[in-house]
Amino acid sequence: MAHALADAARPVAMRYFRLPDQGLENKDARGFDPVTAADRGIEEAMRQILAAARPDDAVLGEEFGRQTGSTGLTWVLDPIDGTRGFISGTPTWGVLIAVGPETGPTIGMIDQPFIRERFWGWPDGAYRNHGGQTCGIRVRPCATLGLATLFTTFPEVGTLAEKAAFQRVAAAARLVRYGMDCYAYALLASGQVDLVIEAGMAPYDIHGPLALVKAAGGIVTNWQGGPAHQGGQVIAAGDPRIHAESLRLLAGGQGLNPVVDIKLPD
Amino acid sequence: MAHALADAARPVAMRYFRLPDQGLENKDARGFDPVTAADRGIEEAMRQILAAARPDDAVLGEEFGRQTGSTGLTWVLDPIDGTRGFISGTPTWGVLIAVGPETGPTIGMIDQPFIRERFWGWPDGAYRNHGGQTCGIRVRPCATLGLATLFTTFPEVGTLAEKAAFQRVAAAARLVRYGMDCYAYALLASGQVDLVIEAGMAPYDIHGPLALVKAAGGIVTNWQGGPAHQGGQVIAAGDPRIHAESLRLLAGGQGLNPVVDIKLPD
Repeated sequence: MAHALADAARPVAMRYFRLPDQGLENKDARGFDPVTAADRGIEEAMRQILAAARPDDAVLGEEFGRQTGSTGLTWVLDPIDGTRGFISGTPTWGVLIAVGPETGPTIGMIDQPFIRERFWGWPDGAYRNHGGQTCGIRVRPCATLGLATLFTTFPEVGTLAEKAAFQRVAAAARLVRYGMDCYAYALLASGQVDLVIEAGMAPYDIHGPLALVKAAGGIVTNWQGGPAHQGGQVIAAGDPRIHAESLRLLAGGQGLNPVVDIKLPD
Repeated sequence: MAHALADAARPVAMRYFRLPDQGLENKDARGFDPVTAADRGIEEAMRQILAAARPDDAVLGEEFGRQTGSTGLTWVLDPIDGTRGFISGTPTWGVLIAVGPETGPTIGMIDQPFIRERFWGWPDGAYRNHGGQTCGIRVRPCATLGLATLFTTFPEVGTLAEKAAFQRVAAAARLVRYGMDCYAYALLASGQVDLVIEAGMAPYDIHGPLALVKAAGGIVTNWQGGPAHQGGQVIAAGDPRIHAESLRLLAGGQGLNPVVDIKLPD
């Protein structure tokens, strides 16, 4: 069902991507919170499929809100995660799909229609499809932040306090990169990067990436180490050691010493 | 010849991209300046082709330096622009190829081997190839920074003074995004974004993007409005109006008033 939803989303997204008339509107009267006709069209296409095939499941989507259900399962949809990237032409946005009970998603998917690259995870494992080929994916080990590649979408991160907390982790990381939207979580699940830290997330921003990263063997929590599926401050790590090290720094504590001094058991 | 070089670069790049053993080394003893076996292998492959087909042209490449020539033409090669993106698995790095006389490049190319997307420009115009299809590309108009999408690769930009200058422009822009490496210039040439501002560029970082953006109808200068092909502080704009507005802000002057107050002649 998740694949059917993502398959329906792709042509709608590509009908608008990089074309002059994207039906761009600003949702924020005092700033710039863009939404396009593609966001609405994709969510409508996915909701139509769910209404026919899974009419008793609940649905929560970014553009059209919450629809209750009776099965205990909720589909959580973000038609375009990274609308700023979408309207800039970058291949970093994605269609996010998740489903699971109240306690959090058990299936999660990130689809990138322009690259035609799809990442998904469920209790059986995590997978990537590109160019017609599917392979298993898994997070990579990373012993300490001094060896870690850290991603976040924009350097402001969130509030000034959240930015300062992020900066404590960033200062300890080997490499910090920006601007990848949900694609950063796909890279984490694929074992290409080690850490994604963000704040101000909505539930629909994190459900899909959360289930994907967990299925690939990673950890996703809030900055206090608790459940992350309600959104807010989120940290996703491939290795529990840098997850723990980052939580200490986010909380204001001291990190480990520089990498040259580390002695870790095998 | 530029297409032949980029064709030779693609399989070498993809032999290493996202694979665990990239031959990663750090060029900077006091920081992290990564270089991979892919960087060296791509430049070697391109230099071999030039040595056979254009033996009397000069060559300047990031990894193997300068080779003199007698034709007055220099090939300027960056085998992987955005090595940090490359080692993080992002589709933002590119192979940069340019050729021209001492006064600056007349042909420029950005190739993204993973997406299989190529952008090039020469005096005849600018083009994009993706999925076997080639079409002409052109920058888009943008009357004022209040409507502009601005890219730079990382928020530190350069020195503290360079960061402050960038921030004056960023504060006036509608949307600021990070992390795209050379792909930002390809998006500018394609009319997807309006402005790229960077500092600390080497000549081989900017030759390819510069000729591409100019061929697409854009402007590329240093922050003082002079030639940019020597690198350093670079600004690339699709519209001369936001180029001029940005130069004033970079120099510390006042920008225009907010977009609602602007009266511009047709």
